[in-house]
Amino acid sequence: MGIALAGKYLDRLSYRVWVLCGDSEMAEGSIWEALDKASYYQLSNLIAIVDVNRLGQRGPTELEWNLDGYARRAEAFGARVLTINGHDLAEIDEALATAAEGDGSQPTVVLARTIKGRGFSEVENHEGWHGKPFPEDMAIRAVAELGGERSLRIRSPLPETPTHATPATPIPDTPSTPKYPIGEKVATRKAYGDTLAALGADHPRVVALDGEVSNSTHADQFAKAYPGRYFEMFIAEQQLVASAVGLSVRHYVPFASTFAAFFTRAYDFIRMAAISQANIRLVGSHAGVEIGADGPSQMALEDLAMMRAVQGSTVLYPSDATSTAALVEAMAEQSGVSYLRTTRGAYPVLYNAGESFPIGGAKLLRSSPDDAVTLIGAGVTLHACLAAAERLAGGGIRARVIDLYSIKPIDTEALAAAAAVTNGRLVVVEDHHPEGGLGSAVTDALLDAGPQTLRVAHLCVRDLPGSGTSEELLAAAGIDAQHIEAAARDLLNDW
Amino acid sequence: MGIALAGKYLDRLSYRVWVLCGDSEMAEGSIWEALDKASYYQLSNLIAIVDVNRLGQRGPTELEWNLDGYARRAEAFGARVLTINGHDLAEIDEALATAAEGDGSQPTVVLARTIKGRGFSEVENHEGWHGKPFPEDMAIRAVAELGGERSLRIRSPLPETPTHATPATPIPDTPSTPKYPIGEKVATRKAYGDTLAALGADHPRVVALDGEVSNSTHADQFAKAYPGRYFEMFIAEQQLVASAVGLSVRHYVPFASTFAAFFTRAYDFIRMAAISQANIRLVGSHAGVEIGADGPSQMALEDLAMMRAVQGSTVLYPSDATSTAALVEAMAEQSGVSYLRTTRGAYPVLYNAGESFPIGGAKLLRSSPDDAVTLIGAGVTLHACLAAAERLAGGGIRARVIDLYSIKPIDTEALAAAAAVTNGRLVVVEDHHPEGGLGSAVTDALLDAGPQTLRVAHLCVRDLPGSGTSEELLAAAGIDAQHIEAAARDLLNDW
Repeated sequence: MGIALAGKYLDRLSYRVWVLCGDSEMAEGSIWEALDKASYYQLSNLIAIVDVNRLGQRGPTELEWNLDGYARRAEAFGARVLTINGHDLAEIDEALATAAEGDGSQPTVVLARTIKGRGFSEVENHEGWHGKPFPEDMAIRAVAELGGERSLRIRSPLPETPTHATPATPIPDTPSTPKYPIGEKVATRKAYGDTLAALGADHPRVVALDGEVSNSTHADQFAKAYPGRYFEMFIAEQQLVASAVGLSVRHYVPFASTFAAFFTRAYDFIRMAAISQANIRLVGSHAGVEIGADGPSQMALEDLAMMRAVQGSTVLYPSDATSTAALVEAMAEQSGVSYLRTTRGAYPVLYNAGESFPIGGAKLLRSSPDDAVTLIGAGVTLHACLAAAERLAGGGIRARVIDLYSIKPIDTEALAAAAAVTNGRLVVVEDHHPEGGLGSAVTDALLDAGPQTLRVAHLCVRDLPGSGTSEELLAAAGIDAQHIEAAARDLLNDW
Repeated sequence: MGIALAGKYLDRLSYRVWVLCGDSEMAEGSIWEALDKASYYQLSNLIAIVDVNRLGQRGPTELEWNLDGYARRAEAFGARVLTINGHDLAEIDEALATAAEGDGSQPTVVLARTIKGRGFSEVENHEGWHGKPFPEDMAIRAVAELGGERSLRIRSPLPETPTHATPATPIPDTPSTPKYPIGEKVATRKAYGDTLAALGADHPRVVALDGEVSNSTHADQFAKAYPGRYFEMFIAEQQLVASAVGLSVRHYVPFASTFAAFFTRAYDFIRMAAISQANIRLVGSHAGVEIGADGPSQMALEDLAMMRAVQGSTVLYPSDATSTAALVEAMAEQSGVSYLRTTRGAYPVLYNAGESFPIGGAKLLRSSPDDAVTLIGAGVTLHACLAAAERLAGGGIRARVIDLYSIKPIDTEALAAAAAVTNGRLVVVEDHHPEGGLGSAVTDALLDAGPQTLRVAHLCVRDLPGSGTSEELLAAAGIDAQHIEAAARDLLNDW
C-alpha cells in the first residue's frame, strides 16, 4: 500500500507493486483495510495475487476453493478481480499482463486457484504437510515424480530503470523550528502539528498520515499546508502503520499519528516494521489519565511498555512545546521505529527556543550538589515534579528534577549522577501502568550500568481509571505534585 | 460475536445480540473479521446496526452516504442487509422486527442512513461538532428547536426471562491433571494441550478457540475431544480475543491460543478486555528465539512486556510440563486477563506431579545458605540456568536457581530472600527483548519492596535475531548456559 501510494502520488513513477497473499491470511482484517484504502486511493498500480490452495496450516480454509466468495468480497472492496487457474501458465501470463496494464482507478486482485503440493501425488491436496520438509525418501520420490533433477534457466525481461526517481534528500540543517515563549501554555500535540508543518516546508520528503483524528493529533496542520503529502487512513491503524512502512521503503520520511491508545491496534505492524528495518515515526496523542473525561478506553497506559519493547526503537516523551519541536525534528533524521508521546492538555513552556534536546539525553531542571532526592518525570508528570520540588524547597528539602524526555535511548549518565548525589533516592512518576514504562526504563538503565543502592518510589497508574477532570484523575492515580511531595518525604524519612 | 456464539452453540438460548456500530469504524479490519466469522458460524442471532451519518471526527467518512457500498461489502461477507432511513420510526421498527426474527443462517446488518445533529439546524450535517458539548446559548437554542423541554416516558416490553440459562459451574476441585515423569522431554505447549483436554472433561464450561494454528499450540487436542466447545477463528487474532471476551460474558471459561507473536495483532482487544473486566485466558506458543528456523517475524520477543502492562493481568511462563499443567488449571479459576507463554521445543520435566504452583509463587530449584549468586529464569532459560548452576558448582561456586514461573503477580519474598543471601547478585535470563519482561519484573518487584543494593546481569535478546537452530540462536543472543555462567562469574569478580 505505502509503496503504491508513493508511486502514484509522490514518485509519480510507472512502477507496479506486486503482492503475494496466502488464502489463509484473507481472514485477517488488515487485508480488508489494505484493499479498502487501495480502492479509496485508486491504486491501479497495486496487484495482489492470492494463492487459493484451499489448505491452511491445520486444515481447510474458511472459503476453501470458493473463488466466487473471494471475488465478491474483493469487488465489494473496490478491486478489479481476475480469476485464473494458478497452474496454467498461459492464464497466469494473461492475468499478469492485464493486471500490469492497470485500469486507471482500481487495484487488481488475481485469484489463482491452485492445488497445494501439486505434482507430487503423495501430498497433493493433502492436509498435514504445511511447513514441513519431506523425509529424505519422500524428497527423492518427489523430485522423481516432478520430472527428475533439471537445471532450467529462465530469463525474464529486465525492468526498465525508472527515470524520474527522486533521490533521498537530507534534512536541511536549519528547519524553521516553531518558537514558544517560556510560560505560555501550549499542548505538546499542538507543538507536534506546528513542527510537522514547519518540517514540511523545509523538507519535500516529509509525509504525514493519520487515523481520522488529525484535528486532535494536530496532523491536520500539515494536511492543510501540504495536502499532496498527507494521507488520511481513516480508522484503520494497521494500514496507517503499514502505509508508513511502504512510504519509508521509497525513502520518504513518514510521520503517522493517532491517539496513543489506538497504536495498540497496530502492534504487530510496528514490531514487523522494526524487523523489516523500516524508518517510521509514530506520534501518539492523548496519552494517560491526563485526557480526563473520555475514560480508560482512550487512555494510553501501555504505550511506553509496548514501544520500548520494539527492537531498536526510539521512545520520546516531551513535556513542553520547545522540546517537542526539537524532538520532532530529530525524529525526521532518526532511523528505525521512533515514537513520540504527546499530551492532550496545554502546559507551560519550560525551555527557551534553541535549547538542544539530543535523543538519548535528559534535562536537569533543578539541581544542586546538596540535593536530597531526585524527582524524575516526563510529559505531564514533569510539571508535577517541578511543583513538588517547589513545595519541598518550601520545607527546606532540595530536590533534583530530571526531564526524562528520551526514554529509549536513555541518559544513564544523568540518572547515575543523580542517584549518586541523592543517595539512591528516586521518585519516578509516570502517567502509565507500572510495567515497562518510565520506572522500568530508569531502573533498568541504572542496574545495567553497574551495582546500585537504590530506594525508589514509583508513582504510576495502578488501578483502572474512571472518567473525570485531568486534575481529579492525576490525583486519584497518585501522580500529582502532592503525592510526589509525600513520596519524596517518605523516602527521606525511611532512610 | 462471542455472546452470539455462546447463544447459538452453548447456551442454546433464543437471545439476540444487538451491536451498534459507527460508520467510521467500518474502516477497521476487525469489523470484517467479525462479520466473516458471524457468517461462517451462521449467527442469525447477531444484528449489527450501523449509524451511517456520513461524518467522522475530522470530516466525512470514506463511503459517506454510499449505503450501497456498505451493503455490497456486508453482503459479500455473508450478512443479510436491511437499509433504512434511520430517522423514520416505522422503518426502524420494521427493520428491528425483521432482524429479530433471524433468517436461520446469516447475521443481519441494518444500515441506517442518518443525519448527524438532526433537528438542530445550527449543527445538522455540519462538520466540526464531533464529541463537543454545546456552549450554553447553543444548548438553549438546541432544546428549543427540538421542541422544548419535555418529559417523555417510554415503556418497552420487558424481555422474557430466559429459561434455559446454565449457571456458572465452579471448577471441580480435582481435575484429572496429566502427569509427566521427571526427566522426560515434553514441550510445555504439549502439556497445555493435554491439560486443556483434561479440563474439558472435568468442566463443561471450559471452551477453547485458536487462530488456525491449533496443531502447533496443541489446542487441537481439545478440539478433537470437544468439538462442540471449540471455535476455530482462523487467522483473525482480533476476533479470536474478542470472541473469548464474549464467551466470558456468558460465564464460559475461554482459553484462546495462537503463536505468542501473533497476539500483538490483538493488543487493543486484550487491553479492552481488561478495561471491560472480562475473564479470558490467552496462551501464546512458540515464544522467543528458541523457535529457531522460522525467524524473527514468528518470535514473540515483546509479549511479556505487552501482557505485563495490561491492567490487572496475570502473566505465567512455565518451564516444564508439570508446572504448565498446574498453571493451566489455575488459569481456569483466575479472573481478569491471564496469559501463559509456552515453548516450542521439548525440555525435561523438572517437577513431580502434585507439586503446587500457586499463581504469584516461584520455585527454588537449588539453594543453600551459602549461595553466592542467584540465577533467575523462566521457560527455556530456566533449563539454561540449571545447567549454568551445575557448571558453577563444578568450579566451587554455589548458585541459587529460581524458577520464576509467575511473572505477574511475582514472588517478591522469594526474590528478596535470594537477593539478601547472595549479596544482591542476580543473573536474570530471558528469551525476550530487554524491556518490560523478566528482568524488569524482578527489579521492579525488589525496588517496590524497599531500598536495595543490587548488582544485576540481565541476559536477554538485544539484537535482531536471524534463523538457525534453537541452540545457535540462544547462544547468539547470549542466553544459554555458557553465557549465564560467565555472567555469574563476572558478578562475583566485580565485587
